Amino acid sequence: MLVPHIIKELQEIVGTANVATDKADLICYSYDATQQQFLPEVVVHPATAQEISRILLLANRELIPDIPRGAGSGFSGGSLPTKGGIVLTTERMDRILAIDQENLVATVEPGVVTEQFQQAVEKVGLFYPPDPASLKFSTLGGNVAECAGGPRCVKYGVTKDYILGLEVVTPTGDIITTGGPTMKGVVGYDLTKLLCGSEGTLGIITKIVIKLLPLPEAKKTMLVLFDSIDGAARAVSSIVGAKIIPTTLEFMDGRTLDCVKQATGLQVPDAARAVLIIEVDGDREFLDKQASRIAEIIQPLGVVETRIAATPAESEALWAIRRAVSPSLRKVNPDKFNEDICVPRSKVPEMIRKVDAIAEKYGIPIVNFGHAGDGNIHVNVMIDKKVPGEMEKAEHAIREVFTGALELGGTMSGEHGVGIAKAPYIPLEITPQTAAYMKTLKKALDPNNILNPGKIFLDS
Amino acid sequence: MLVPHIIKELQEIVGTANVATDKADLICYSYDATQQQFLPEVVVHPATAQEISRILLLANRELIPDIPRGAGSGFSGGSLPTKGGIVLTTERMDRILAIDQENLVATVEPGVVTEQFQQAVEKVGLFYPPDPASLKFSTLGGNVAECAGGPRCVKYGVTKDYILGLEVVTPTGDIITTGGPTMKGVVGYDLTKLLCGSEGTLGIITKIVIKLLPLPEAKKTMLVLFDSIDGAARAVSSIVGAKIIPTTLEFMDGRTLDCVKQATGLQVPDAARAVLIIEVDGDREFLDKQASRIAEIIQPLGVVETRIAATPAESEALWAIRRAVSPSLRKVNPDKFNEDICVPRSKVPEMIRKVDAIAEKYGIPIVNFGHAGDGNIHVNVMIDKKVPGEMEKAEHAIREVFTGALELGGTMSGEHGVGIAKAPYIPLEITPQTAAYMKTLKKALDPNNILNPGKIFLDS
Repeated sequence: MLVPHIIKELQEIVGTANVATDKADLICYSYDATQQQFLPEVVVHPATAQEISRILLLANRELIPDIPRGAGSGFSGGSLPTKGGIVLTTERMDRILAIDQENLVATVEPGVVTEQFQQAVEKVGLFYPPDPASLKFSTLGGNVAECAGGPRCVKYGVTKDYILGLEVVTPTGDIITTGGPTMKGVVGYDLTKLLCGSEGTLGIITKIVIKLLPLPEAKKTMLVLFDSIDGAARAVSSIVGAKIIPTTLEFMDGRTLDCVKQATGLQVPDAARAVLIIEVDGDREFLDKQASRIAEIIQPLGVVETRIAATPAESEALWAIRRAVSPSLRKVNPDKFNEDICVPRSKVPEMIRKVDAIAEKYGIPIVNFGHAGDGNIHVNVMIDKKVPGEMEKAEHAIREVFTGALELGGTMSGEHGVGIAKAPYIPLEITPQTAAYMKTLKKALDPNNILNPGKIFLDS
Repeated sequence: MLVPHIIKELQEIVGTANVATDKADLICYSYDATQQQFLPEVVVHPATAQEISRILLLANRELIPDIPRGAGSGFSGGSLPTKGGIVLTTERMDRILAIDQENLVATVEPGVVTEQFQQAVEKVGLFYPPDPASLKFSTLGGNVAECAGGPRCVKYGVTKDYILGLEVVTPTGDIITTGGPTMKGVVGYDLTKLLCGSEGTLGIITKIVIKLLPLPEAKKTMLVLFDSIDGAARAVSSIVGAKIIPTTLEFMDGRTLDCVKQATGLQVPDAARAVLIIEVDGDREFLDKQASRIAEIIQPLGVVETRIAATPAESEALWAIRRAVSPSLRKVNPDKFNEDICVPRSKVPEMIRKVDAIAEKYGIPIVNFGHAGDGNIHVNVMIDKKVPGEMEKAEHAIREVFTGALELGGTMSGEHGVGIAKAPYIPLEITPQTAAYMKTLKKALDPNNILNPGKIFLDS
């Protein structure tokens, strides 16, 4: 527990009401979507970069770990206070500061909830594409820190592609700005992109300058049922191979479909063993042409049925099926390890075969769905932790899934980050030389290792 | 001059034929597009990352500066050996290693010439958008190191947006790989984007993994003549404000038009005092609709004449006008300082007025053209260095142009980089705190300061 004079100093910086040390409060900020739990020593709710700067100066003096936290919706433990210390939340920094309609640029504080921001810009005909599944509660600050993805990234890219500039408090307490509101800029190193996806280890984000797009005129959603997982996977590479990049190319395997059928009462032919949800967007007239071309390309690959949404409500109904996936999986087994490997798109069929073989080898269900259009597959290893030996099997299976993805030129994580969940596996993907380059950066910028320590690299 | 045993060691690493110390050879690698000249002590032509690694190990041991060099076409002095030492060229590393049509990904060596790469991918229906004016001779390695731009960046983004991964020799001689061929990846820090635009100061690029797009079906080019510079500038913000992002939105002021008329015999009405070249691309049917919409938006802004290319040859003829700009400027004055400020798009009219006022104040011609669509204006301060006092006036004018751009939320450089040309002005744009963060990175990664020293920061 932190000594009283440090708590008093924190209270002086952010105000007494914004410092919490009660057990109940600490518990609220002790977990994320990994379902692991680590208690912080204190939770502070700063309102400005200046306050965060003063907290980090104090933390450097006293060598206290500092853990920035958005909504705590991450899947890799990035916001967990694994070494105790101070959790800094961005809850009070939740203002949309500006939406510049002339320049298609917005400026926000890090605590703005992603969906609220999307709705605000769509109201004025603009578009912020990144759409992580957590968007109803995740914050833009967290999205930037983890470089969040989502279904629309197939066509539009990830969070990083929309971040033009940042205001950041450095690990040593300086307030810096990176980039800015211009579309181009090459003065000095690109700290914006370095900080984006750095999982809160190189600085605490206090302001975000975001690039927006014009809102597409219309979209068209289709749900395609395939008679085999292989057909669906080959459909993905055939569409992209035909030089068409849809907005989304979401995929579910047969087991996922079974779960969704049970949970939602969805009626599909028995022959359906895999699903693709394909969406295209843009100019209204153009969409029909693109949708027919896609239907034509995939027809020979075992299509059982194609449903095309004719209205926004029908489109919403198709997406409701996709959103039912995660909650419905618990029917398979109570405990879920949700990985998010990413492979070159054409390797999706081979990767799925590898995962099936691993599931069979260990006798545990592995359920696959996700953003097949960019090769980003959510591999869900489903076990019951209470059954002796299942945890060990899961760990072996996960390691083999990672190795399999890397053998195909892939990565262990497309959008969730490393945090603590994937830190043990880092040596599988990153050579000691590349890791040394990264650790040199971290060590130089955070000499006392106070900012989100123990994340990404186990020995950090 | 380097001592003979070092030359001998270099010869052992890359072969005698690939080490040059003759004065004539040294002169060939002593300049870039800034027209400044600095002689290296030796020029080496390595063929592999391993050879470059061995050279950097030697350089660290002997404390010799190392300057990576592509085609030497940069506008900011990034490839100039200002402190002597070893110039490492990428001329022998010029192979396109793979074009993966299924995954829309290519892998190349750094010495590949940009246009040759574009032609190779277009042959198979793919598209690499970044198109710096130097593309006929500049190399992809140089484009990545400087984060090159070009007219098409308005719609498609800059070089960085297409770089998925790199192989790099670090300043201390390690060979590392960053990123990879997947569309997403968040394992560890994003070294790819950090290295992109780092002007050869954080590592030497030896392999580049590039994201490609499907080649657009068609394009439509229009040249629009305006009766005032202000009309043309307001047209840019009106088009973008109407949520249309054309492929290019190139702009020339009246003085540029005069130069081009003289140089090419171009016939235009006398009332024309500014030009926009607007191109849209995509689905063929969609283009007519978009072009008419643009014509409608800009009509009230003083349009004198609109020429729409009906054939690829006519489109090419319109672009020839744009390409005639740079060479034709010398008619104004023999010496040109080509700056490339970037401001938020809506600020282009105000920026042009500022530049005009600066030109008038100092009594020297300033000619403006460039990528107005993303606010990136090439401000050309034209003087005759032989006239006493003109250099000083130019320096004052350039400083005021930079200050003016920064006051509008802009940057000193949209695509040329800092190098030595803009290093003296860095404190105008970057705070001491932000500069300290950047220098901490450089110092940690290059403790002996051997890799491209003296670039970006004067005191580095």
